[in-house]
Amino acid sequence: MISSREYLERLKAMKPNVYMGGELVSRDHPLIMPGIRVIALTYDLAQDPQYQELLTATSHLNGKRINRFTHIHQSPEDLLKKQEMTRVLTRKTGFCIQRCMGVDAMNALSVVTWEMDESLGTEYHQRFLNYLEYWQERDITGCCAQTDAKGHRKLRPHQQPDPDAYVRVVKKDAKGIVVRGAKRHITVGSYAEEIIVLPTRVMTQQEKEWAVAFAVPGDAPGLYLVNRASAPRPRRHLKAPLASFGSSDTLTIFEDVFVPWERVFMCGETEFAGDLALLFALFHRHSYTGCKPAVTDVIMGFTALAAEYHGIEKAQHIQMKLADLIGVAELVYGAGMAAAVKAKRSASGTWIPDPVFCNVGRRHAGEHIYHEHHILSEVAGGIPATLPYEDDFFSPELGELVNKYTRHRPDIPAEHQHRCFRCIGDLAVSAFGGVWQYAGVHGGGSPIMETIALLKNYDLEEKKRVAKELAGIPEE
Amino acid sequence: MISSREYLERLKAMKPNVYMGGELVSRDHPLIMPGIRVIALTYDLAQDPQYQELLTATSHLNGKRINRFTHIHQSPEDLLKKQEMTRVLTRKTGFCIQRCMGVDAMNALSVVTWEMDESLGTEYHQRFLNYLEYWQERDITGCCAQTDAKGHRKLRPHQQPDPDAYVRVVKKDAKGIVVRGAKRHITVGSYAEEIIVLPTRVMTQQEKEWAVAFAVPGDAPGLYLVNRASAPRPRRHLKAPLASFGSSDTLTIFEDVFVPWERVFMCGETEFAGDLALLFALFHRHSYTGCKPAVTDVIMGFTALAAEYHGIEKAQHIQMKLADLIGVAELVYGAGMAAAVKAKRSASGTWIPDPVFCNVGRRHAGEHIYHEHHILSEVAGGIPATLPYEDDFFSPELGELVNKYTRHRPDIPAEHQHRCFRCIGDLAVSAFGGVWQYAGVHGGGSPIMETIALLKNYDLEEKKRVAKELAGIPEE
Amino acid sequence: MISSREYLERLKAMKPNVYMGGELVSRDHPLIMPGIRVIALTYDLAQDPQYQELLTATSHLNGKRINRFTHIHQSPEDLLKKQEMTRVLTRKTGFCIQRCMGVDAMNALSVVTWEMDESLGTEYHQRFLNYLEYWQERDITGCCAQTDAKGHRKLRPHQQPDPDAYVRVVKKDAKGIVVRGAKRHITVGSYAEEIIVLPTRVMTQQEKEWAVAFAVPGDAPGLYLVNRASAPRPRRHLKAPLASFGSSDTLTIFEDVFVPWERVFMCGETEFAGDLALLFALFHRHSYTGCKPAVTDVIMGFTALAAEYHGIEKAQHIQMKLADLIGVAELVYGAGMAAAVKAKRSASGTWIPDPVFCNVGRRHAGEHIYHEHHILSEVAGGIPATLPYEDDFFSPELGELVNKYTRHRPDIPAEHQHRCFRCIGDLAVSAFGGVWQYAGVHGGGSPIMETIALLKNYDLEEKKRVAKELAGIPEE
Amino acid sequence: MISSREYLERLKAMKPNVYMGGELVSRDHPLIMPGIRVIALTYDLAQDPQYQELLTATSHLNGKRINRFTHIHQSPEDLLKKQEMTRVLTRKTGFCIQRCMGVDAMNALSVVTWEMDESLGTEYHQRFLNYLEYWQERDITGCCAQTDAKGHRKLRPHQQPDPDAYVRVVKKDAKGIVVRGAKRHITVGSYAEEIIVLPTRVMTQQEKEWAVAFAVPGDAPGLYLVNRASAPRPRRHLKAPLASFGSSDTLTIFEDVFVPWERVFMCGETEFAGDLALLFALFHRHSYTGCKPAVTDVIMGFTALAAEYHGIEKAQHIQMKLADLIGVAELVYGAGMAAAVKAKRSASGTWIPDPVFCNVGRRHAGEHIYHEHHILSEVAGGIPATLPYEDDFFSPELGELVNKYTRHRPDIPAEHQHRCFRCIGDLAVSAFGGVWQYAGVHGGGSPIMETIALLKNYDLEEKKRVAKELAGIPEE
Repeated sequence: MISSREYLERLKAMKPNVYMGGELVSRDHPLIMPGIRVIALTYDLAQDPQYQELLTATSHLNGKRINRFTHIHQSPEDLLKKQEMTRVLTRKTGFCIQRCMGVDAMNALSVVTWEMDESLGTEYHQRFLNYLEYWQERDITGCCAQTDAKGHRKLRPHQQPDPDAYVRVVKKDAKGIVVRGAKRHITVGSYAEEIIVLPTRVMTQQEKEWAVAFAVPGDAPGLYLVNRASAPRPRRHLKAPLASFGSSDTLTIFEDVFVPWERVFMCGETEFAGDLALLFALFHRHSYTGCKPAVTDVIMGFTALAAEYHGIEKAQHIQMKLADLIGVAELVYGAGMAAAVKAKRSASGTWIPDPVFCNVGRRHAGEHIYHEHHILSEVAGGIPATLPYEDDFFSPELGELVNKYTRHRPDIPAEHQHRCFRCIGDLAVSAFGGVWQYAGVHGGGSPIMETIALLKNYDLEEKKRVAKELAGIPEE
Repeated sequence: MISSREYLERLKAMKPNVYMGGELVSRDHPLIMPGIRVIALTYDLAQDPQYQELLTATSHLNGKRINRFTHIHQSPEDLLKKQEMTRVLTRKTGFCIQRCMGVDAMNALSVVTWEMDESLGTEYHQRFLNYLEYWQERDITGCCAQTDAKGHRKLRPHQQPDPDAYVRVVKKDAKGIVVRGAKRHITVGSYAEEIIVLPTRVMTQQEKEWAVAFAVPGDAPGLYLVNRASAPRPRRHLKAPLASFGSSDTLTIFEDVFVPWERVFMCGETEFAGDLALLFALFHRHSYTGCKPAVTDVIMGFTALAAEYHGIEKAQHIQMKLADLIGVAELVYGAGMAAAVKAKRSASGTWIPDPVFCNVGRRHAGEHIYHEHHILSEVAGGIPATLPYEDDFFSPELGELVNKYTRHRPDIPAEHQHRCFRCIGDLAVSAFGGVWQYAGVHGGGSPIMETIALLKNYDLEEKKRVAKELAGIPEE
Repeated sequence: MISSREYLERLKAMKPNVYMGGELVSRDHPLIMPGIRVIALTYDLAQDPQYQELLTATSHLNGKRINRFTHIHQSPEDLLKKQEMTRVLTRKTGFCIQRCMGVDAMNALSVVTWEMDESLGTEYHQRFLNYLEYWQERDITGCCAQTDAKGHRKLRPHQQPDPDAYVRVVKKDAKGIVVRGAKRHITVGSYAEEIIVLPTRVMTQQEKEWAVAFAVPGDAPGLYLVNRASAPRPRRHLKAPLASFGSSDTLTIFEDVFVPWERVFMCGETEFAGDLALLFALFHRHSYTGCKPAVTDVIMGFTALAAEYHGIEKAQHIQMKLADLIGVAELVYGAGMAAAVKAKRSASGTWIPDPVFCNVGRRHAGEHIYHEHHILSEVAGGIPATLPYEDDFFSPELGELVNKYTRHRPDIPAEHQHRCFRCIGDLAVSAFGGVWQYAGVHGGGSPIMETIALLKNYDLEEKKRVAKELAGIPEE
Repeated sequence: MISSREYLERLKAMKPNVYMGGELVSRDHPLIMPGIRVIALTYDLAQDPQYQELLTATSHLNGKRINRFTHIHQSPEDLLKKQEMTRVLTRKTGFCIQRCMGVDAMNALSVVTWEMDESLGTEYHQRFLNYLEYWQERDITGCCAQTDAKGHRKLRPHQQPDPDAYVRVVKKDAKGIVVRGAKRHITVGSYAEEIIVLPTRVMTQQEKEWAVAFAVPGDAPGLYLVNRASAPRPRRHLKAPLASFGSSDTLTIFEDVFVPWERVFMCGETEFAGDLALLFALFHRHSYTGCKPAVTDVIMGFTALAAEYHGIEKAQHIQMKLADLIGVAELVYGAGMAAAVKAKRSASGTWIPDPVFCNVGRRHAGEHIYHEHHILSEVAGGIPATLPYEDDFFSPELGELVNKYTRHRPDIPAEHQHRCFRCIGDLAVSAFGGVWQYAGVHGGGSPIMETIALLKNYDLEEKKRVAKELAGIPEE
């Protein structure tokens, strides 16, 4: 396991291929650093004895102690711990811990490479295990690049006017493959050491060139990362953890990138593309049952704090709203726990969480994120939207008056009240907050995708049989 | 373990004290039998090898095989099994399995009698164990009488103009106590062999006479059961399981009923009254995380069947509605599972489910029962509300026309379509259905009670600390 | 205008063709009388000076004073008055006033007969006016039979295996037409003097025989009314208006019924079938913007009364729930008013309410009826579901105790409290209540139909233009 | 009526007293200009013949043609027109038209000054009329400063530790009064020529010094405007109306500001303070029934456009979501129309919209703004949150690839697709968007305030009487 300093040094050593606003920028650009700080936390806390139990695991490859973000789940307990780790860490940053992307992709690969080999006689699983050992050994931060550009939504990959609308193999030889296309919305892309590319959907037999999975270094030749960063407005006076963290997403362009065979994990096995796509989504939705309750914890914490600072925390309508937030957090978390309890061991040995519980959990979260923001807004009042700029509070001319007139409770320091509502502004009245509303709906799958996954995995016929039995209707 | 026949014989042997419509009636009155049939199922299936694992347990008193409805939970697995058993059985009747009332009361007593003895040096726990052994041995069906008449809602028990508004001890001597008052909404009351009486709320020191818990036979002298029965309209032609089951609730009047000391489990220990009240509610809310998903299973099954019989089961808006129902069922069930996983062992050895997860689960169920009926209504269409009477379908003069004009899909027998929509009418357009809407909101605690319980058990201060840490606000 | 006595006498003089439970019954059958009492109210109050302004109008045919339920709307004010009349009357019965069915059908015919004549040179409008004069003169109670049996939902009328799935013309000669088929869910069917039959959907050119509209006397030869009645359980001691009213729906079977030409208002004009279907629906949805607020008034009144009788009317969560109910009532009512303000005069002179406002209003009502019942249930508590039978309150043996233990506030007569919760039971825990939940969703069109109507009438392209203009996207 | 150029010149001529980030800034600061552009529109379009009918009115003072934003409503039609004008203009800017603040304050003053004079013999109304003439003559843009700093929320003004927590009169002499305190959340504050100050709540007899209403020029000595501006990120390449507009809110500090008597409209008349506060709120909520539907129009337009650009506009779940948005827009608009239809003429001649309809409309809007954003987010997908920066689309090195991979439909220009999703980002993933979510909840009154206003104005007793009559309960 490495330190966050080592991670940062490795990032700086990478070849520049990150672009923002039309310019090539360094990976430690001030707008990217907030996201890097989030990842840094996953290294530092893993070395903190208080969190070791939760943030580390024992590699099933070699028995070494590894960061849990590089671990393949060996039991339902592993799934419970990963869920808990995700909640604990997400609360420390105020939103997304980001590093689950890579580990979720690795777990999905662990299962499907085994299944391809079993069914088709390929050799992907051993290749994957070699790569995994490298990954665990170096304590890699990776990301998962799944969502393709997609082009026309009503057309399948092989029907697109532009065949690059989905990432595809354009050349194949003895050494490896060459890929072209782009992946969108790739969180961590610009500060990932490794980018794992997975298919985004079921592929048909005509779509061999699009059924591809592989890993590339984040600075591979031909790889362009068009980055969009988001973070709260930087503070000058009132430094705060929340305001120091952020995230980035990249439009990840593969302009004929070469991938050697030892990093290729699927190439043409169309019948497994959908499995791999869905399995990553499943592991990632399970991650959401850990992080979304933490997002709610943070919203709930600021809601309760705002209520206290307004002096209205005992009002019944506030209590009702807090209970609503608790309901969202714990129903989602409970669903994730149930998914672990009902997890199944795959043939590869990796434990897979129950898809019904993962999907009802993630779907519930996605359907309530705006409701949660609504509650926070109702309780906070208009203050976060109209709070004067930070510097106005420190202005020699008007600072005293600004503090005088924005303070509610005389028994609580003005600065504390200021800090509380400025953070709510960061969370809810900012581009950064908007990103996390959208991520709340779409990250790890939109509610409509969970609905589809749910209906696919749920035995509705069995429910009809219950009805028929009660109604005295014989099975037809 | 006994057979349902033995249960019925024991009921018939009881002294008549059940009243309906101003008249003393026999316990096997045709309006009461539908409820009795539900309980009968819990005896018969326990003897069915297919269900034995789920419906029976090993007594921790003597190692004997007992009905799980008489078992004290010895592990998280016991809680998971009880939850699963409740779902499985509830699906067989279409609504409430009813017998959990007694076992939930017994589990609550197992914990609090131990705690009273520990704290006050009383001897309630051994008394309770003796009673439990009798109960397990005879495979008793009991009910729990908790909700008092309550009088004026704003006044405490000792402030009521009528002191009988809450059940109380009016006399105490060497042999036992005499109690007076009434308990409302007591499901199973008229076909319970034993009635367990628990306090309904926290009691203050001035309320010693109201801090009382005990058990009486269902036909104890001075006990009057004013019964209200509900069941679907009986069928003449199209017998169906759903239409054969029902339930009863009693206004349970204690008109100076004597209780010998060996059946008294609390008498004046005001500081434990609230614990006992809340602990029964907690066990019962955990039961709801088993039964409410089953209620949703049944609603979902009929919704899906109606959609199929209309030929619209593939429509996207139908699919969305089914996904909503799945979400309600499995979020509540998942919360119950999480409550078992996070259960704590009490000093008495009884395992207590986690209150936060129980309450978010039960609360979610209570807040969605009308929503579920709304969905069923939307999909079923107006048919259940205007379906001609059963006999019109069998009328020599018009039966053929009635069938011709109420049938939708020609490839499905008219009778099946008729059965489906008549059952939906039984569930949703009937006094019986109305009772189960109200029970869906209030049974085992109204949403407002779960909200209160939730806020009481949830560590909101800890969430505020998360917010403060993120905002850089030191602990005051 | 006639008295209710005259209406009753006319009903009794009709040939028996109403069936219930397989038997031919008299129109004044005790189960049908509750519905008749509702209609009677529309006659009696029209003669009450207090209501005359609202319940009567001036015929545009001959200037005579007529019951507003027979009036063709001559202005936006007429639409506002009809809406208000509907709310006022519905509050007097507790649910549906029923008689709007006929007048809504007549208004739709007034418009479309004119348009057919204009476009096709037919003579339907004069025929309609003659019929209207008869109807106004005799102060007729009619119903509208629109919803067909429909058979397989995915097939059009002419594709059905059974051509009778939609009412159709099976014979045509110089004197008139012969029709066959059935109409479902026909409220008022068994106590309507006249049944107006309209098409239920758009018809294509292949569907001439199904494009038919006409009127028949309620006891026409070949017409069979299979009736389903619903009403609260009759009272023995505590007579109350709510418990005296009810309704009936018929499966209305046309077994080769002859209709003379002077009563035929469409016969083969397929291009106008959809207009007529939708226009009746539109007038009827406008009626709903009057009656649904009244249904909410009643639910709100009982919710507020239950809260008062519990002594909790000042609690904030109760206040919030009442505000929710007010919101439902007045948003729907306001939408109906806006529909009148934005009404358009048709070429026939009849004023047509705005379809967008009618549909958003009706849709909002339909989406909230279960929510309203949920609120009533939450506030009422479990009492309506478990209240002992009426006779138990009057039992010499136990009546006193039953009253003692079901009474909450000592300062309010026990009988008043009993009456309140018994009525809530009538409204919400009864087959009657279930019928009105279903009617709340489906009466006058299901929410999905309003959604479709809304999207059809709403200019979404114009909204896209607003977006494009703001975004600087030129019109393509 | 003046031109926007004249307005701008007058602004520039004002004495600088606007502060941002601790610095004194000019009124035409680039961050403030977006808000000024919104107001400019209200001048320019009033001179556009197409909008003249809607945007101008005839002064009741002197019969001159005036901007409707300076008009006192003389009829229900005026209220309908003001509502329509607000919707039309708000659609042109994409959010808030802002100028209603002033006119709503003026209408409230027109009523209450008359009532004070009538009741107390004061001379406020004539003073107000003089001021109004000046206002209409100069075509003033004003704002209304109502919300005080408030201090401790549980204390009344006179109980506050800091008496300045509510704006108050600190000195009074023959020439006028001197006021101190601050008003928060004052939209338009920094580009208003006149600031109208009204009390924010009911005042008791001990609160004479806080019962004060007056008008001051925006640059009065002692007045400090601490401004917070918000607007979409400025564009370099893809200029668009939406991105050119914005708004500002000020913390408006009165540091001993002198107000001559002719500009004082209330001074110590505590019994009228609440009336004035509520009446402004009422007029302003009526404004919301015009602007919130327009906000929904814009959200709906972009939702429909995004769906079209994704090629999914026919999907049923999209259609349902659009219908939901239509429902929100038109129910709120319909409520506002009903409020005009049911408006009452005050003794001053000003027409006052119906409070029940205004409040149900505004409340419905406030409860659905996050729901609307949720829908937009669901349909737009993650794109607005991760869209590369504008310059990346125009980068010589990568611009072509960025366009290639962010384009969906090949038949629609890439730039149009880019423009659409960038605007959605402006609306929903930006600090500006966050401000408008908060304004959607709190602007013109939070939902809880509408709930309170609703319950205050609604005759619940009458609803209880309906229930009692139906239940046969005599009036007590």
